[in-house]
Amino acid sequence: MFFKKKINILDILNIIGKKKKIKKKLFIYKIANIHDAEKGDLTICNHDKYLNFLKKTKSSACIIKKKYKKYVPANCYPIISINPDIDFIKVSNFFYKDFIVDKVSKNFLRLSTIVKKYKKNIFGSNFICEKNVKLGKNISVGHNVIIKENCIIGNNVNIGSNVIISHSIIGNNVNIGDGSNIGKKGFGFKVINKKIIRVPHVGKVILKDNVEIGSNCNIDRGSITDTIIGEFTFLDNQVHIAHNVQIGSYCIIAAQVGIAGSTKIGNNVEVGGQSGISGHLNIGNNVKIAGKSGVIRNIEDNKVVMGYPSQDIKEFIKNNRGLIKKK
Amino acid sequence: MFFKKKINILDILNIIGKKKKIKKKLFIYKIANIHDAEKGDLTICNHDKYLNFLKKTKSSACIIKKKYKKYVPANCYPIISINPDIDFIKVSNFFYKDFIVDKVSKNFLRLSTIVKKYKKNIFGSNFICEKNVKLGKNISVGHNVIIKENCIIGNNVNIGSNVIISHSIIGNNVNIGDGSNIGKKGFGFKVINKKIIRVPHVGKVILKDNVEIGSNCNIDRGSITDTIIGEFTFLDNQVHIAHNVQIGSYCIIAAQVGIAGSTKIGNNVEVGGQSGISGHLNIGNNVKIAGKSGVIRNIEDNKVVMGYPSQDIKEFIKNNRGLIKKK
Amino acid sequence: MFFKKKINILDILNIIGKKKKIKKKLFIYKIANIHDAEKGDLTICNHDKYLNFLKKTKSSACIIKKKYKKYVPANCYPIISINPDIDFIKVSNFFYKDFIVDKVSKNFLRLSTIVKKYKKNIFGSNFICEKNVKLGKNISVGHNVIIKENCIIGNNVNIGSNVIISHSIIGNNVNIGDGSNIGKKGFGFKVINKKIIRVPHVGKVILKDNVEIGSNCNIDRGSITDTIIGEFTFLDNQVHIAHNVQIGSYCIIAAQVGIAGSTKIGNNVEVGGQSGISGHLNIGNNVKIAGKSGVIRNIEDNKVVMGYPSQDIKEFIKNNRGLIKKK
Repeated sequence: MFFKKKINILDILNIIGKKKKIKKKLFIYKIANIHDAEKGDLTICNHDKYLNFLKKTKSSACIIKKKYKKYVPANCYPIISINPDIDFIKVSNFFYKDFIVDKVSKNFLRLSTIVKKYKKNIFGSNFICEKNVKLGKNISVGHNVIIKENCIIGNNVNIGSNVIISHSIIGNNVNIGDGSNIGKKGFGFKVINKKIIRVPHVGKVILKDNVEIGSNCNIDRGSITDTIIGEFTFLDNQVHIAHNVQIGSYCIIAAQVGIAGSTKIGNNVEVGGQSGISGHLNIGNNVKIAGKSGVIRNIEDNKVVMGYPSQDIKEFIKNNRGLIKKK
Repeated sequence: MFFKKKINILDILNIIGKKKKIKKKLFIYKIANIHDAEKGDLTICNHDKYLNFLKKTKSSACIIKKKYKKYVPANCYPIISINPDIDFIKVSNFFYKDFIVDKVSKNFLRLSTIVKKYKKNIFGSNFICEKNVKLGKNISVGHNVIIKENCIIGNNVNIGSNVIISHSIIGNNVNIGDGSNIGKKGFGFKVINKKIIRVPHVGKVILKDNVEIGSNCNIDRGSITDTIIGEFTFLDNQVHIAHNVQIGSYCIIAAQVGIAGSTKIGNNVEVGGQSGISGHLNIGNNVKIAGKSGVIRNIEDNKVVMGYPSQDIKEFIKNNRGLIKKK
Repeated sequence: MFFKKKINILDILNIIGKKKKIKKKLFIYKIANIHDAEKGDLTICNHDKYLNFLKKTKSSACIIKKKYKKYVPANCYPIISINPDIDFIKVSNFFYKDFIVDKVSKNFLRLSTIVKKYKKNIFGSNFICEKNVKLGKNISVGHNVIIKENCIIGNNVNIGSNVIISHSIIGNNVNIGDGSNIGKKGFGFKVINKKIIRVPHVGKVILKDNVEIGSNCNIDRGSITDTIIGEFTFLDNQVHIAHNVQIGSYCIIAAQVGIAGSTKIGNNVEVGGQSGISGHLNIGNNVKIAGKSGVIRNIEDNKVVMGYPSQDIKEFIKNNRGLIKKK
């Protein structure tokens, strides 16, 4: 939806130095990861732990080391590579070369056009609404708001002033506080030979129904998959949610919390102010993380933790006896 | 001033399922807490520790458990409740139903009108000034600034660009940095039966004379009482001040500090960068809190603390011997 | 460039209560520190450790204690002071009295003028470009951007929306994320007799080629020297860089990091999310600082640290055995 493409597989092979002939015409429509690649997608398998996904993949092409060739199903064209990671970045950068950097678009509607189209919504001054945005009913949009192309905004949504929304699908009854930025590209890149290589971020942000976002927050869009915040989850001010993070329902995330890339958080989780959670972790349901904790490993359901590194809160209290109780 | 109302007590009783007859007509004009409720206010007493306030309350109505009825003075109409907290939320939400979410207002003045009225002030481009705002003399307002209705701004105030001010009273000689948001509703809600219930925030922000606020800061307005920052207190960038926080005079709050709801901080307090202070604490006068500390209990006057949880700085240094001194 | 002045030395002497006669006319053009003061500058020497700089200074005037008079070279006019620090502040405040607070300027170009001048650049709506700004080629500027007078922006620069840039020199191929504020005055002031005295900040921000800045970041300009970020250094969202900080090349600074004033960071340094680095420190090349660390002393080249206070990461793991490994 946000990053439509149609590229001939021959052009892709050419980018990584392979001049092959393929009988049938084969087009690639998007890049996806091995977990959820579909027909028309190009993907990568770069580790044994993904072999089960490779064997069943519905994707149309997959970049692999030679040794994985025997696992590739018939529907998928195998692209043999000595260094799949680097070739995947090359292909991604070629495929989405317009999306490596978020540039300004001049392709937006005049406020008068929007007001005429959506008579029951309230729009503030200086609202920039790009084309193909879908707005629900009973929406309040603050001043100086920017909503970029193809975004979908549900009903009864309240957007503060100075908010920027791009590459996002926003549910019903969502509140977004002043100055928050939803859907910009994440902090993802590769360091190759000491050079930092920017990579495209072609995922989305999905805010489910009844989400509340505070002021001056950042929620970055996914790199390939999506960044998702579940229904009735509330974020306070100055919260940073990195790309690919998935948060469940009914969570309470206090101010200045940071959650690093690709971490998954269950339902009914409470995170105290200024806590940080490292990337690629799994935090279970009903977990409580006390303020200013530093979480660097997975947490099971129903645990209560505190500290840096975080530990069971009873242990933390025992280890800090004399520093906890009020005098 | 910001949340004017006049509601018949019968309508309030109706909301919580009580159909009573009252001889005299009784109107409620605002919701207040038991510490400072005045004539015309509705308040709540939900704990023994507030009984002394209840006995002397000047409020016109108070939600209480039955056992407190004997302490209610004659001027106050007692509203007996099995669950005072939930009924108080119900009443607050009914009373201030327009203020649960901050919506955009179209009721603002044209820049040309403001310029004509305040000839000696300097206004940037795209200044949104809602009605009934009072501006002092010799004010500089940046670009894209929004000042919402009923705010009062003192003399010699300098407001950066992209600043949003609502529900605030700003003293003289105050500086507010670019992108800061002053006076939005706080992160306050109730979790009832696993549902998160939004509650209205009807307090103010008061910045006293000579306050300096950095860039990209958040200072949330109080829930029922006010958020107050004392004179000559300086805040650096990206500071988060939650609802109902009260900070004294001549304090220095470094960048990325977060202070949770309802905490009170004395005069001449220094808080190092990235420190966090939990909610509902009392921090004395002349306290110094070293950078990145996590304060989770009260601190007496003149103490110097560091650590997470924070402790006396001499203890912290002793406990971290070898990690403090520069090599 | 940003703070041009020409002040007679007699006016400066008058400010600190000295009524002297000087034979030759002597004008001061800027304030500088003792390390890099040039002809036409006024500087200060307030400590023995700077005596070698004093002996070779090319500055035209220097505030000193009487005992340093014998070290002042012939090209430099010595200003004898009982309290050099306070007199230096008085002189700075007199010299740069217009720059103690960043005020809005009405001296900006109409968008139509800019578009005509820079036909190959793309400008968003409501772009405020003050006079004497130099823009390179192939620049994309978002909506509601403010670039203040005398800034220089290189080629292929991409500036997000709601960005404010002042007192800055931006190299080529730089990306700046939405809502970031580059070049505002730092959090610098003096506390004299319990009063907080604002001081002018007359340094710059220099972003070298290929720098990437995330969203909602703050990079404050230097007080007297400059704040510098080296080429190919990447910053994530909500990062705070205080005045006079110098960061080398190819560094990766994750989200919500704060670096306090005047700290110097080498090349190829990685700083994990939410880490804080105290002021006036030296961090070597190739240093890695794990997320949420609190760095309060210098770090040598190639070290890997973690913790608060930070320590060698092997020690940190040993000291936190049981809390690090994933279950």
